Amino acid sequence: MNTNEKSLKLHEEHQGKIEIVSKVKVETREDLSLAYTPGVAEPCRKIHEEKELVYKYTSKGNMVAIVSDGSAVLGLGDIGPEAGLPVMEGKAILFKEFANVDAFPVCLDTQDPEEIVKTVEYIAPVYGGINLEDISAPRCFEIEEKLKKSLNIPVFHDDQHGTAVVTLAGTINALKLVKKKFKDCRFVITGAGAAGVAIAKLLHHIGVKDIFLLNREGIICEGQKYKNPYVAEMAKITNKEKRQGGLKEAFKGTDVYIGVSGPDMVTREMIADMNENAIVFAMANPIPEIMPEEAEAGGAVIIGTGRSDFPNQINNVLAFPGIFRGALDVRASDINEEMKIASAEAIANIITDEERKPEYVIPDAFDSRVVKEVAKAVAQAAKNTGVNRI
Amino acid sequence: MNTNEKSLKLHEEHQGKIEIVSKVKVETREDLSLAYTPGVAEPCRKIHEEKELVYKYTSKGNMVAIVSDGSAVLGLGDIGPEAGLPVMEGKAILFKEFANVDAFPVCLDTQDPEEIVKTVEYIAPVYGGINLEDISAPRCFEIEEKLKKSLNIPVFHDDQHGTAVVTLAGTINALKLVKKKFKDCRFVITGAGAAGVAIAKLLHHIGVKDIFLLNREGIICEGQKYKNPYVAEMAKITNKEKRQGGLKEAFKGTDVYIGVSGPDMVTREMIADMNENAIVFAMANPIPEIMPEEAEAGGAVIIGTGRSDFPNQINNVLAFPGIFRGALDVRASDINEEMKIASAEAIANIITDEERKPEYVIPDAFDSRVVKEVAKAVAQAAKNTGVNRI
Repeated sequence: MNTNEKSLKLHEEHQGKIEIVSKVKVETREDLSLAYTPGVAEPCRKIHEEKELVYKYTSKGNMVAIVSDGSAVLGLGDIGPEAGLPVMEGKAILFKEFANVDAFPVCLDTQDPEEIVKTVEYIAPVYGGINLEDISAPRCFEIEEKLKKSLNIPVFHDDQHGTAVVTLAGTINALKLVKKKFKDCRFVITGAGAAGVAIAKLLHHIGVKDIFLLNREGIICEGQKYKNPYVAEMAKITNKEKRQGGLKEAFKGTDVYIGVSGPDMVTREMIADMNENAIVFAMANPIPEIMPEEAEAGGAVIIGTGRSDFPNQINNVLAFPGIFRGALDVRASDINEEMKIASAEAIANIITDEERKPEYVIPDAFDSRVVKEVAKAVAQAAKNTGVNRI
Repeated sequence: MNTNEKSLKLHEEHQGKIEIVSKVKVETREDLSLAYTPGVAEPCRKIHEEKELVYKYTSKGNMVAIVSDGSAVLGLGDIGPEAGLPVMEGKAILFKEFANVDAFPVCLDTQDPEEIVKTVEYIAPVYGGINLEDISAPRCFEIEEKLKKSLNIPVFHDDQHGTAVVTLAGTINALKLVKKKFKDCRFVITGAGAAGVAIAKLLHHIGVKDIFLLNREGIICEGQKYKNPYVAEMAKITNKEKRQGGLKEAFKGTDVYIGVSGPDMVTREMIADMNENAIVFAMANPIPEIMPEEAEAGGAVIIGTGRSDFPNQINNVLAFPGIFRGALDVRASDINEEMKIASAEAIANIITDEERKPEYVIPDAFDSRVVKEVAKAVAQAAKNTGVNRI
């Protein structure tokens, strides 16, 4: 059996991947009278008196909603809420297995941003955090922005920020190896979707010298007309030198290439146009923007992909479990830029100075130290920025 | 420690009562590649091709939403979604422990019926059934009616139908004991909320001779003006003899009294006005409409309450786990009247002719035979009425 067949078999055998179990025993009449009526009325009364006690007496404080409308699922595109459910269940079990976070799939039968926002606001009482997942750009930006404003629990679009955090972690270690600093580096990013925009924003936030962000039409550049307000916003914070053109023009004189676009679109010649000691993260899955051997032939010295069969896999599982663990641990009301940067640094620092090498700038997805360090760093950053509530 | 203190301790110790766990192992890179990317893409593709396969490859087919807006929680009233959460988590663990149904609390931060309906429609892709809970009348009727029309999964308001089913079960056995038939009996019901309306409807459906249904103003009677359309509807199907008056008038010449109203409102004199061999189910909690000893003094020969410390406890846990188990087992698109009646008969039939006696017309809440028999009967009734999909 190949992977696809094995996966079908696994999903069919278990009829899905998640179940809801009781943390308390319900065997006797007394058990029932404490977990349910009449005893349950007492925690209800307490929470009614003081709403914050919902964290003390219910599962809310450890519960995350994985919200998707099925509009941009993996590389499969707009397959709808039912077809997206296996991915959301998969995400739920990763939350549990990696960080002991309880997570539940919320697959929505609407793709209207206003309706999605309202629905998430309505269901929020049960959750300690909201993980947005596989919602297509640019709607994902609007949805996240509004929910961050209206809810007092953290809202995090993993396709944006999870990817940005792990990419940043890899870049931190890569730049150390080639002895360059973020503030002196030019970045080129292909793909101005959820991940590309979030990566560019995070790099801008930490003071990168310049970023060329490309969508299908070429380098995004201020002064051009963009219908999409989020692209227009990116034009303001990227491409200071107002470089115009396409892929060929974009790579010249850059230090780091980040691909979050599509297969096989970058050539070794483009890589050769980059500065010395070029760093390449080509993360399109399953086929990267440029294969590692081609990138190397073009002169790249550190190469990462989204795949587990090459070195330096950029895998979101390094970020989201620990980020939510840390945020929930201190009852954070937000996951802000400082918390994201702290988590990227925590991921990067798993690898010691001695261990760090071109084939090892990102820890393994199963490195059990990662979630603990990320959670600790995120909780501390939440405290430092005052978004913690305990 | 008393029950309240013990319950608080239990809820605090475990930080709520439910957790989400994985049905598959996630220990190795291969596990991850089957449960998550890249393998998970295959069940996604299959479901995208044929939506019904969501039942084969995900947890949907065994997953029930427990939907509440916190407007009528236990006897506590309108305490809101957060304060209602301990009850909904309690319900979730009963679903799991009694019937191996996975159930998840959906506590909504809106009490607008239109918004509740839309929200439940949006979140429905993940669920195989919807259990409405603790939503105040008359909004609960409108919400259930609309959802039953728009969704192709069963929608069941437990406060209505769960209570009606168990009451019917008790009445079936009680009438056998006193050798009366439904079609010859007059019923009096105090309380025209969710439970009272549902009980009256179910009794009407099975051909009871007459029903006097009382709200705070007295016996509901056709010809009077009712603002609430659901009360007006009840006026049409109850009180054929157009009896007018209050509690005193209502009991005269009736055979069965069902109380789903409030404490201590019925006297032994009212019971004495009932026909010979009166049957009394006084279900207000914790204090019944009339205490069993008073009802007995008034001449009642079979008495049930909502309490576990008296004989014949009318407890919804006898109905909802098995009803949903049966409905999910045959992928029913609805829980219809026939399925409810079948479940009431199954509950009643747990008690054999030999075992049946005035103090034992309802099985014990922990009688493990109940859920199996109810599930079997409900599944069969679904098939008989053609609402099954497997």
